[in-house]
Amino acid sequence: MVSFSKLLTVLSIVALSVAQTFQRLGACPTLGCVLPPDQTDFLAGQYFDIRLEVHAPVNGSEANGGVPDPNFTFTIAKANGTPQSAASFFKIAEPKLETWNFTWYEDLFAQDAHSPSVVRVTSKAYRRVALYEPGDYVATLTYYNGTKTVANWFVRPLSTQKKAKNVILFIGDGMTTNMITAARLIAHKSINGKYQTKMQMDQFPVLGHQMAGSSSSGRTHSLDSYITDSANSASALYSGHKSTVNAMGVYADSSADPFDDPKVETIVELLTRIWGSAIGVVSTAFIADATPIALTGHTRLRSQYGVLIDQALRGVSNYTWTKYTGADVFFGAGAEQFIAGSGSFQGKDYYKEFSNAGYSISMNKTSMLAASNTTKALGIFCTSNLPVWLDRNVYKDNLNKTSNDPSGNKKPALDLPGLKEMTLKAIDVLHARGGSKGFFMMSEAASIDKQMHTLDYDRALGDLLELDDTIKATIEKLRAMGELNQTLIIVTADHGHGFDVFGSADTKYLSSKTNDREKRNAIGVYTNSGLSQYTVTNASISYNTGVNFPVNWDPRYTLAQGLGANPDHRENYRVHKSGPRLPATNITGYPVDDYFVNPTDNPDGFTVNGTLPTNEAQGVHSLTDVPVFAMGPCQELFGGVYGNIDIFFNMANCLGLGQPSDTSATNTTSAGTATASPFPFTGAAPTKRVQRGLLVGMLAFMISIGWFAFTL
Amino acid sequence: MVSFSKLLTVLSIVALSVAQTFQRLGACPTLGCVLPPDQTDFLAGQYFDIRLEVHAPVNGSEANGGVPDPNFTFTIAKANGTPQSAASFFKIAEPKLETWNFTWYEDLFAQDAHSPSVVRVTSKAYRRVALYEPGDYVATLTYYNGTKTVANWFVRPLSTQKKAKNVILFIGDGMTTNMITAARLIAHKSINGKYQTKMQMDQFPVLGHQMAGSSSSGRTHSLDSYITDSANSASALYSGHKSTVNAMGVYADSSADPFDDPKVETIVELLTRIWGSAIGVVSTAFIADATPIALTGHTRLRSQYGVLIDQALRGVSNYTWTKYTGADVFFGAGAEQFIAGSGSFQGKDYYKEFSNAGYSISMNKTSMLAASNTTKALGIFCTSNLPVWLDRNVYKDNLNKTSNDPSGNKKPALDLPGLKEMTLKAIDVLHARGGSKGFFMMSEAASIDKQMHTLDYDRALGDLLELDDTIKATIEKLRAMGELNQTLIIVTADHGHGFDVFGSADTKYLSSKTNDREKRNAIGVYTNSGLSQYTVTNASISYNTGVNFPVNWDPRYTLAQGLGANPDHRENYRVHKSGPRLPATNITGYPVDDYFVNPTDNPDGFTVNGTLPTNEAQGVHSLTDVPVFAMGPCQELFGGVYGNIDIFFNMANCLGLGQPSDTSATNTTSAGTATASPFPFTGAAPTKRVQRGLLVGMLAFMISIGWFAFTL
Repeated sequence: MVSFSKLLTVLSIVALSVAQTFQRLGACPTLGCVLPPDQTDFLAGQYFDIRLEVHAPVNGSEANGGVPDPNFTFTIAKANGTPQSAASFFKIAEPKLETWNFTWYEDLFAQDAHSPSVVRVTSKAYRRVALYEPGDYVATLTYYNGTKTVANWFVRPLSTQKKAKNVILFIGDGMTTNMITAARLIAHKSINGKYQTKMQMDQFPVLGHQMAGSSSSGRTHSLDSYITDSANSASALYSGHKSTVNAMGVYADSSADPFDDPKVETIVELLTRIWGSAIGVVSTAFIADATPIALTGHTRLRSQYGVLIDQALRGVSNYTWTKYTGADVFFGAGAEQFIAGSGSFQGKDYYKEFSNAGYSISMNKTSMLAASNTTKALGIFCTSNLPVWLDRNVYKDNLNKTSNDPSGNKKPALDLPGLKEMTLKAIDVLHARGGSKGFFMMSEAASIDKQMHTLDYDRALGDLLELDDTIKATIEKLRAMGELNQTLIIVTADHGHGFDVFGSADTKYLSSKTNDREKRNAIGVYTNSGLSQYTVTNASISYNTGVNFPVNWDPRYTLAQGLGANPDHRENYRVHKSGPRLPATNITGYPVDDYFVNPTDNPDGFTVNGTLPTNEAQGVHSLTDVPVFAMGPCQELFGGVYGNIDIFFNMANCLGLGQPSDTSATNTTSAGTATASPFPFTGAAPTKRVQRGLLVGMLAFMISIGWFAFTL
Repeated sequence: MVSFSKLLTVLSIVALSVAQTFQRLGACPTLGCVLPPDQTDFLAGQYFDIRLEVHAPVNGSEANGGVPDPNFTFTIAKANGTPQSAASFFKIAEPKLETWNFTWYEDLFAQDAHSPSVVRVTSKAYRRVALYEPGDYVATLTYYNGTKTVANWFVRPLSTQKKAKNVILFIGDGMTTNMITAARLIAHKSINGKYQTKMQMDQFPVLGHQMAGSSSSGRTHSLDSYITDSANSASALYSGHKSTVNAMGVYADSSADPFDDPKVETIVELLTRIWGSAIGVVSTAFIADATPIALTGHTRLRSQYGVLIDQALRGVSNYTWTKYTGADVFFGAGAEQFIAGSGSFQGKDYYKEFSNAGYSISMNKTSMLAASNTTKALGIFCTSNLPVWLDRNVYKDNLNKTSNDPSGNKKPALDLPGLKEMTLKAIDVLHARGGSKGFFMMSEAASIDKQMHTLDYDRALGDLLELDDTIKATIEKLRAMGELNQTLIIVTADHGHGFDVFGSADTKYLSSKTNDREKRNAIGVYTNSGLSQYTVTNASISYNTGVNFPVNWDPRYTLAQGLGANPDHRENYRVHKSGPRLPATNITGYPVDDYFVNPTDNPDGFTVNGTLPTNEAQGVHSLTDVPVFAMGPCQELFGGVYGNIDIFFNMANCLGLGQPSDTSATNTTSAGTATASPFPFTGAAPTKRVQRGLLVGMLAFMISIGWFAFTL
């Protein structure tokens, strides 16, 4: 064991070497880690956990002898106040010391050489605490004989008044301004530059931009990042705390357990606890997917689908936390987590678990529409994700190719609702159940993102138009119900894709040419791009999809469009009539994660070699700020440019969720309701339930991340 | 000659065939054309010309015998009023009939086969008229024995009150939200997701989106388009009238003369005529480039640089129009149009012409800063465009490689101002000269666009940061002057490029690999993208460029970024230290307009084959809506989503330019100031001056457009 003074010398050298992309632990540039980290904002009264870690690298550029300090201390001080030990500050017992090891790679060269850096860790976690007084706090971790890691925390001003009865948050997953522009062009007819019909989003009174990608602090296990995924971006929108790729409702720590990371309370948990409002979750994705499930999920590992569904029904059960007994409405897909079997938690039948908890169960549109409005409602309409709008409304034959019946009988699910039907029915239930307490609903158009990933621009834009159509119908319904003026409606996205339209393609000319360079000359740019042919009436085509959608999805002159980040693929710029696109595949003789042009995709197109790592089969998310449209009470809070966490703080402000004390006695856990209640730590180790899930989760995690492994 | 009834039969067949990208004449889907076309909005009292055309296709799918109707009639009616002949309505003489022919290609197949369609035309033009009473108007062209083309026009409500003393319009040419996000990431340090410094744009109170590309009605000579260029988009911002690729301040007609197209009055002309405010034009481009020169230019052909500089100094001279005697400030580049010679109008010395008109002349920064604030100021600091911020501030050696001295002596121009210095000095002059009448300034960061075209992301983002730094300094200056509260500041763009950031690149790893697929694995996406390394302090690097710019432009881990629309090129994602990038070149043995990877660009990079026609050497503009930031009087008009023409109407509203009668007696042409003054048409034919320019212009036009030619 080396002396601490020697360690300090090493540390000062280390400081220069950490300016790299691969990181030991996000939000922890030094060897002492405080989570929530420096610069964190809190809502007054919002529950959270604290995780402290002291790292001792065994090898690699930061090696300090590999003995982590077991005697670190941690204090908290209100601005200009006297630092107190955290246990004293929160009036809780001092938690036990934990220890573990983990490994990471310092860069791609180290990864190629399979030379991981090993780190030994000492740690403590303080569970379910809260800060009630607005203002600045200083949290200080002291370790290695005087080295300090300081976290400056800020509790935002109180917001005890509920200004909006209801909040509806529409999320177009992966939706950028560029996509809205393209969708407008194909669906809304213009005469000499003046649109004759309007998108609903374009009619919102307030526009903002949220810094979705760039401000993701990326507290990943070992890597920080400025490109976000839907888990950590949803988490920022719902909790006001930035998280990590693959994480939701927690700050990711370096321990192996994906369910012991320090949690933060979400808007759904706060609203349930403080006002008892009704809660609705609607998505065209599987319900356990990041965007819907992050409303209640707390894990570093989004792929823990089964556990997450259980959390959505029963709340967190391995640690004392907000009491939560399930949303009033869940409408979406993902029957895998409900059918008894390998996809469900502990192999149980979750249709039955929900039914036992008092939910009506719908497995098709007809049943959903007939369900009682006064009963909690679960609607799971198929396995995987909901087929997209284009297949449900234009190329309907593709539905017959599926085997996605939500009962698991391998037949196609044909009686499917769309986002609009699910959303409008959800409003009926939420209105009936919320009563004077109002409701909160998140309604997600998930396949804008999913179809952009596979470069299926038409399907992505179709689902974007379905979202807009849904928003329009929602506003009309709320107006008819007399609820519109009391409802804050927000439309936003969680991140972008680098998509844009750059001209038109003469698909007839493109197809007639025999080599790639000649085919590219079918693209018309600037003046040669012409006008949208998707809105030109054609007597032989009628989809009966209404005025908010294209008249013709397969005109001769289409949009020339695409992403800046691609796998190898081929483009012919025509709609994929026979089903969703698969742009790249692996091929015999190469590793399974090495992707090339899919030979059956656009055989008459020209080849575009990719810009992404060859183990990426799809496009990826991008950095861009995404738009926010707002109307209703508090709409003025959503103009201008701000961080994604401000969406949470603005909604919380409008809902009066920033509380000066723990006033929600009827909606808290049995473990107590005191301001900073001590409760018996039955050991920081996760429960058995979580331990079981962990094994599967760890494997998925290691596969998904690829370049670091735990030494357990 | 065929009968008119037979023609009508043909016309009804034709209607189906015009749903194509190549068009005979934009905004003219039938054989009768009214310019301004259907759906046009006007500012009350805004001067404009009217052009009528009747087309007779000789061959092609629309062929009708090829005899255009010489007896067409044209009426105008106020809403629900009685139609009157236009001559009677405007109290002007009936113009003479004009005739010409032109040709166009119906599609790419016709172009490849060199089979143009020939059209014969009869036409009339009504010059310098105006509508003063707000409301709806119906303009009807009747031809071919009763066929009608109806244009519905709308005059927006009056706005006689001047609410802002000054207006400053900042244009980031080609600047999208995606680029702002990327620029923020490289220049502003964040700690755990919270930015420690802020971009000025992010602090504007009001955000909007303008539909720049998609709503371009593209009244091109023979093609309509949804992708815009900087000429017609600038024209929409400055006049409230959408135009055509390559056109500014006019609706493009089908005649050969690029200076007889029907004009619309610009905000600069209106403001000069009505209030006599001071006018400033600042750009990092050559001053004759589209964005600066469209403030006063009226031509279908943006490449008429020499004539356009003369128009900027003396106003329109071939037809009666607004009296205009030059802006108070011109600061920018483009000495080619000022040095006596082939680039200047009539070969004259335009430094001398401006000096004779009372301008101080500056040819370097020192001289500009020393110039009198009470004298009109011309500053031309180099030939071509101003070297970009990155070369002026970081890689300064590149300046020595130039031969761009504004005197034309082929030496490098080294005493160069940047956008900030030009803008701040312009404010001094405009403040002194405008006095109580206030001022209007357009300040353009031109090379955001120009460097995105050549995929030089670093140089583009550098100039975007320079724009933001300029806006910050402008606000500080106005505050110190006591003018801030009286000044409407707008920041926007004219169109986009499909740019985004999708991850990071480990440039060391990329360079170390020997094949393209391995090199691509240097890209880190999502969690592997890490944090910005551009803001990490490095003791060995100091550019002294201040807090609003990157600390390190050449870190090991850079942004992985790019466009969806590219020529063939190679990427290594590193800054181009030795000068601006040239991604694609033509190569020996191939046609000069066939572009391949530039072998000297990024030799250690990987190849990305393009998505653009192979005759495009650069990236192209994209469709996306672009952001609008506003602060000051009338800022509330700029929230939400609207068309690019609304920027004009909102500025005009704030400046009280919508007038109920022609009240500007002191600032109109000698031809008269009556509401709808008849004035002697000395013939519709352009003046000799224009005829001379025409020869050069037509050649450039035919080259630039490539796929249609005039039959004169």
